[in-house]
Amino acid sequence: MTIMKIVEEIDRAQNIAITSHVMPDGDNIGSMLALYNALSGMGKHVQVFSSDNPPHVFSFLSGYENIKNCTNQTKENFDILFVLDCGSIDRIGNCSKLTERSDKIINIDHHGTNSNFADISVIDTNASATGELVYDLIKQMKVDITKDIAYCLYTSILTDTGGFRYSNTSPKTHFIIAELISSGIDFGMIYDKIYRNFRYQDISALGKALSTIELYHDGKIAYMELLKNDIEDVVGYDCDHDNINTSDFIDFARDIEDVEVAVFVKEFASNEYKISLRSKSYVDVKLICEKNGGGGHVRAAGCTIIGNSIEEVKGKILKQIEAQVRCDKGDSI
Amino acid sequence: MTIMKIVEEIDRAQNIAITSHVMPDGDNIGSMLALYNALSGMGKHVQVFSSDNPPHVFSFLSGYENIKNCTNQTKENFDILFVLDCGSIDRIGNCSKLTERSDKIINIDHHGTNSNFADISVIDTNASATGELVYDLIKQMKVDITKDIAYCLYTSILTDTGGFRYSNTSPKTHFIIAELISSGIDFGMIYDKIYRNFRYQDISALGKALSTIELYHDGKIAYMELLKNDIEDVVGYDCDHDNINTSDFIDFARDIEDVEVAVFVKEFASNEYKISLRSKSYVDVKLICEKNGGGGHVRAAGCTIIGNSIEEVKGKILKQIEAQVRCDKGDSI
Repeated sequence: MTIMKIVEEIDRAQNIAITSHVMPDGDNIGSMLALYNALSGMGKHVQVFSSDNPPHVFSFLSGYENIKNCTNQTKENFDILFVLDCGSIDRIGNCSKLTERSDKIINIDHHGTNSNFADISVIDTNASATGELVYDLIKQMKVDITKDIAYCLYTSILTDTGGFRYSNTSPKTHFIIAELISSGIDFGMIYDKIYRNFRYQDISALGKALSTIELYHDGKIAYMELLKNDIEDVVGYDCDHDNINTSDFIDFARDIEDVEVAVFVKEFASNEYKISLRSKSYVDVKLICEKNGGGGHVRAAGCTIIGNSIEEVKGKILKQIEAQVRCDKGDSI
Repeated sequence: MTIMKIVEEIDRAQNIAITSHVMPDGDNIGSMLALYNALSGMGKHVQVFSSDNPPHVFSFLSGYENIKNCTNQTKENFDILFVLDCGSIDRIGNCSKLTERSDKIINIDHHGTNSNFADISVIDTNASATGELVYDLIKQMKVDITKDIAYCLYTSILTDTGGFRYSNTSPKTHFIIAELISSGIDFGMIYDKIYRNFRYQDISALGKALSTIELYHDGKIAYMELLKNDIEDVVGYDCDHDNINTSDFIDFARDIEDVEVAVFVKEFASNEYKISLRSKSYVDVKLICEKNGGGGHVRAAGCTIIGNSIEEVKGKILKQIEAQVRCDKGDSI
């Protein structure tokens, strides 16, 4: 069994590095720090490297403060380099030099495609998160699941399953979570830190966007906009507009009952409007966005439209959506 | 064991009624319909009664359409009346007449206080939901957990644990959920139906309220308002203002980083303002509300303030909150 081979490598190793993909998320940070805490507890010399700074929201995890940026990486050599949650080696960004200074590369991942870059690989696409596979490894290492480790693994699995609701959540996911919470961790706090910890400017901009929602086409289309003026009201003039995280705004419009397509128009620069589209069950919004030079997926797509005014852009995109709704409705209505 | 006694009673019974508390929620409907589906599958004659109409959001559960209103209850007699999720018999509202026409009353509940009104009672305050106890019973009845039953129990447990994040969630909760999802239910759909299925008027009013959020007292107080005019913009004039569900609005203000107290002022009638207060970790908002003739809990309270204008009311409540923040901060800051 591959996991037993990894346990043997760990037994022989003293100097261990752990890294993961660029733009770190909860599974990335959670699985790296779970392994870091487990290996440190065994007395190994362990270092965690990240190409990008880890999001502050995960700073409650034990070991977070020891995550090192790869731009300042040491000249040390490592017996093992663990590459977690990555299907290919270029996903580790500027941590790639670690590979040259490591005797063995071990890859643990749950993504569908893998370039087979490691000396030892554990790839399981049935795992909801890389954290599930790190849990399996820690159990085989005969290390106790301490509270510190449980916090990390819970974070990893919670975030990659969207709170245990995505279809990647399996019975095994819940068995693991049952063991993790029996360690006595405050899992409600984890949820609040990650999902209920808003910034004033984001909530304020969300309010401005939601208060513009209008329904069209017999309630099947929800339209929402956020103008430059509104953003400036929130962040100030000549400030970084991208400092507002609007990525989830459109979900509120999509999730209104009977809505099939949601559109969010964000004024980006003079005459330049970023369009996000979502559909619930049958309209292909990718086709609409491709027509405007953008792209994406059938249920989530985006594009940029140049126009003289918000009215012009709104009229144009609504007309295109209405045409696509009529085209796609088929027997779904 | 009490549960075995219940199984014996079920074996002897033919005509069975099930009811639960007034103002039905997910655990109420989910646990009633899980038991209904299990008993029906055994060939029993089962009827489900509710004092209030069950919320439409649960209409995807098998048996929902058979829930009967107690005002039109039949003159039938029952071998068993199951009273679920109730600590006292008056909680079943106008279904109370069922008790006179039932040979045996069986109470299954997880609340802390119980008036011991039933012939047989299973009370377990460690259960996250009555659905957990109904799961135990169904297992003892040797009935298979069908998809229909799994949908009901998942709904019951999901809603009473707030998506497995409240502190009542136990390892056993996750073990049960693991078995329920192994039946192949679409649990993502359950989540979306219950938590991501908004009404246009609620989202629109949420936008209006969030866009008024202002921070005071060095970011420790978040103020938010919703005026009659704004509500009328959404629901129309002379319409039922209570038709907007504003109960969760204040959570967005409370959950802004560094905010300790959130206040939501809702203009209710001329000169009449409903105040909701929430605090995060150390301010006693109940004291503030009691001062204004209201009440509640330390972290969540409410009151009504009469005033000539929103400015007057806003000034008054902010002054009271600031005083309480100064009073309570003690060593928490």
